[in-house]
Amino acid sequence: MPQFLETTATDFEAQFQTLLNAKREDSPDVDDVVAGIIADVRARGDAAVLELTERFDRVALTPETMRMTPEEVAAAADDAPEEVRAALVLAEERIRAYHERQMPSDESWTDESGARLGWRWTPVSAAGLYVPGGLASYPSSLLMNAVPAKVAGVQRLAMVVPTPDGAVNPAVMAAAQIAGVDEIYRIGGAQAVAALAYGTQTIAAVDKITGPGNAFVAAAKRRVFGRVGIDMIAGPSEILVIADGDNDPDWIALDLLSQAEHDESAQSLLITTDAAFGKAVAEAVDKRLETLERRAIAGISWRDYGAVIVARDLDEAAALSDRIAPEHLELCVADPDALAEKITHAGAIFLGQWTPEAIGDYIGGPNHVLPTARSARFSSGLSVMDFLKRTTLAKMSADSLRAIGPAAEVLATSESLEAHGLSVTARLSKLNR
Amino acid sequence: MPQFLETTATDFEAQFQTLLNAKREDSPDVDDVVAGIIADVRARGDAAVLELTERFDRVALTPETMRMTPEEVAAAADDAPEEVRAALVLAEERIRAYHERQMPSDESWTDESGARLGWRWTPVSAAGLYVPGGLASYPSSLLMNAVPAKVAGVQRLAMVVPTPDGAVNPAVMAAAQIAGVDEIYRIGGAQAVAALAYGTQTIAAVDKITGPGNAFVAAAKRRVFGRVGIDMIAGPSEILVIADGDNDPDWIALDLLSQAEHDESAQSLLITTDAAFGKAVAEAVDKRLETLERRAIAGISWRDYGAVIVARDLDEAAALSDRIAPEHLELCVADPDALAEKITHAGAIFLGQWTPEAIGDYIGGPNHVLPTARSARFSSGLSVMDFLKRTTLAKMSADSLRAIGPAAEVLATSESLEAHGLSVTARLSKLNR
Repeated sequence: MPQFLETTATDFEAQFQTLLNAKREDSPDVDDVVAGIIADVRARGDAAVLELTERFDRVALTPETMRMTPEEVAAAADDAPEEVRAALVLAEERIRAYHERQMPSDESWTDESGARLGWRWTPVSAAGLYVPGGLASYPSSLLMNAVPAKVAGVQRLAMVVPTPDGAVNPAVMAAAQIAGVDEIYRIGGAQAVAALAYGTQTIAAVDKITGPGNAFVAAAKRRVFGRVGIDMIAGPSEILVIADGDNDPDWIALDLLSQAEHDESAQSLLITTDAAFGKAVAEAVDKRLETLERRAIAGISWRDYGAVIVARDLDEAAALSDRIAPEHLELCVADPDALAEKITHAGAIFLGQWTPEAIGDYIGGPNHVLPTARSARFSSGLSVMDFLKRTTLAKMSADSLRAIGPAAEVLATSESLEAHGLSVTARLSKLNR
Repeated sequence: MPQFLETTATDFEAQFQTLLNAKREDSPDVDDVVAGIIADVRARGDAAVLELTERFDRVALTPETMRMTPEEVAAAADDAPEEVRAALVLAEERIRAYHERQMPSDESWTDESGARLGWRWTPVSAAGLYVPGGLASYPSSLLMNAVPAKVAGVQRLAMVVPTPDGAVNPAVMAAAQIAGVDEIYRIGGAQAVAALAYGTQTIAAVDKITGPGNAFVAAAKRRVFGRVGIDMIAGPSEILVIADGDNDPDWIALDLLSQAEHDESAQSLLITTDAAFGKAVAEAVDKRLETLERRAIAGISWRDYGAVIVARDLDEAAALSDRIAPEHLELCVADPDALAEKITHAGAIFLGQWTPEAIGDYIGGPNHVLPTARSARFSSGLSVMDFLKRTTLAKMSADSLRAIGPAAEVLATSESLEAHGLSVTARLSKLNR
């Protein structure tokens, strides 16, 4: 991977293309295994889920113990340190306040023909939330999925979380309590996704499933899509920082490493207008990598996919950024608002030196579930809209049908759809009688 | 298929389940063929597209003739009858007026901590529109896809439409002109989808692909999803009419047949509170089927998937409707607005006797691309939102970082993501120095 690029170099375009096209995901092909698991859960329900849970998570459950009781949730949550709980409470408040502003409004109006038109938003009735077990079990991700669902008005939010060898994450349980999750099942993997999508004797089916997971979970979500709605399938995390020379190199290094430490396949990029500053950041990254707890992961990510790009000016930086369409974009420049105006494709923008990306992961308010792998060109982060659906409304008066009905008859005839036309003609005949 | 059901019957629930679970789609497995076509287009670009077009559409094109010139489009459009053009102009105006009201607004506010938060909507830069050739080539569908894209602000709208044996549909060309489609390529099938998704020497890649197509097109859209955005994969059309006894049975019969005539797999259902009226509608359907042009198709659809359900009252009808979650719902009752209030899951609702569903297909204003196969439980019809994406914005002040940063540090530590925490700590250290 090219580590230090200058846009003035003759081979820059080729190097940049290499960066853009780096295949960072190695998704193992687990589709056949997952298809078998889903078929098994559809056929045998609880029995299949319990067997698979015993096999994969080494936990023996019954239909009665599959779901955690409120007392069990409370006891587990009590093990979370008080300062963690307080931080989760603040995070939930801020995420809720942000997402409450996303609620769209219903509309209804009467046009000049006398037709009443509009639409109405309603929440999904039941949503399922996948929460990974083990190392990648993040209470912050739980909040980012659960809070928009609850703000949207989802009545039933059912969460699944595997408990390998019986291990429960106290902070995750505290977050579930704070967010108001309605049901918690200690199951995971493709079997949990299948149970949510199709239902079992114990778990009622949901209408939509969101939340991150491993390759089995992702494959299962793809397979049940259509039966239920799903959120995007997220790829490895990415950050692009655009910084001028007037920054602390160590701050920017830490911002880059905060994505790199997620995953060996994460990508951290810096575009700077100051070559010397770029070199200073690269040095600061190396220095931090000497001591960082997750230096093994972060080091591989930075080595394989990281880069510093020196641009002529901020206009060029903005144009490169739009070609990258980053998941996270940090603008550490003198006038970040002006630069943001020049950006078209980004999942989330963090403006100015006091807004490290990590603020957005936890506590800022906006959602941290964001489009990866250049998909910010056409998609958005998670929001209340993911838990709402729109019903369009139309009510013709006799006058409005008289006014616009004939055009519908003409178009139906031109499309050779006779009954479409006749359904209008029959009514107009009565009106014109 | 049960044709006449009464909710008071002891076996009603079983019969209703049969209706709900009817597998109406027989999607041939063309995935391997499609994968090969996509790989070929990625590898060879124009050459592959042109060869496949010659093979499947029996049309010999060159890179120069693949795209229609404005003169060719105009000449083809001129063959559309004047009344069809006038109807398309009215339809475009009404669809545009409706969708303009859907444009969401950008938001920006400063919270009590001093953090500026908000979001911004931007259009997809380039969209691809698939338009089928042959019998199912509908100008109305073109408008329903193209108008929301243009209202959203999509700068480049590239349309593909196969021209088997050179045949061009004049009404489709007129609709493309009226809607302001920017580029038209006379190609179709999986090769056209691949060309839009990956680009060729002649066709620049787009960011999002929408529009209906056959099994090959649907499989290709599924495969390129991720590289580009796609709209939903629509299943066979459906209508549910809820009617009291105070309706003309022939009108309701025609409304049912206007879906049945689309496709042998379409489903037309009537729920009525008046058994005698239900029987009268069934008789009217049979009578119309004697003469309807598309009686072969409509007859099979009605025989295999159609049904009349007699309900105790409108509350029961509304509850059944929500279990069906119909694509199209027509409410032909004395107080349709009151009944609509009781409905939660439906793609589009048509209120009252003067609003046959066909009005919504052509000229009402709302979109006719709607969720099928019970997916109205979790998804919505096509809208300007499908051509927009949201970028979230966050800008901390030094004070706001001081206020909420410590909570981010706590959560980062609890998730063992050290660099996340350090990126905040480094900044707070300077502030507190």
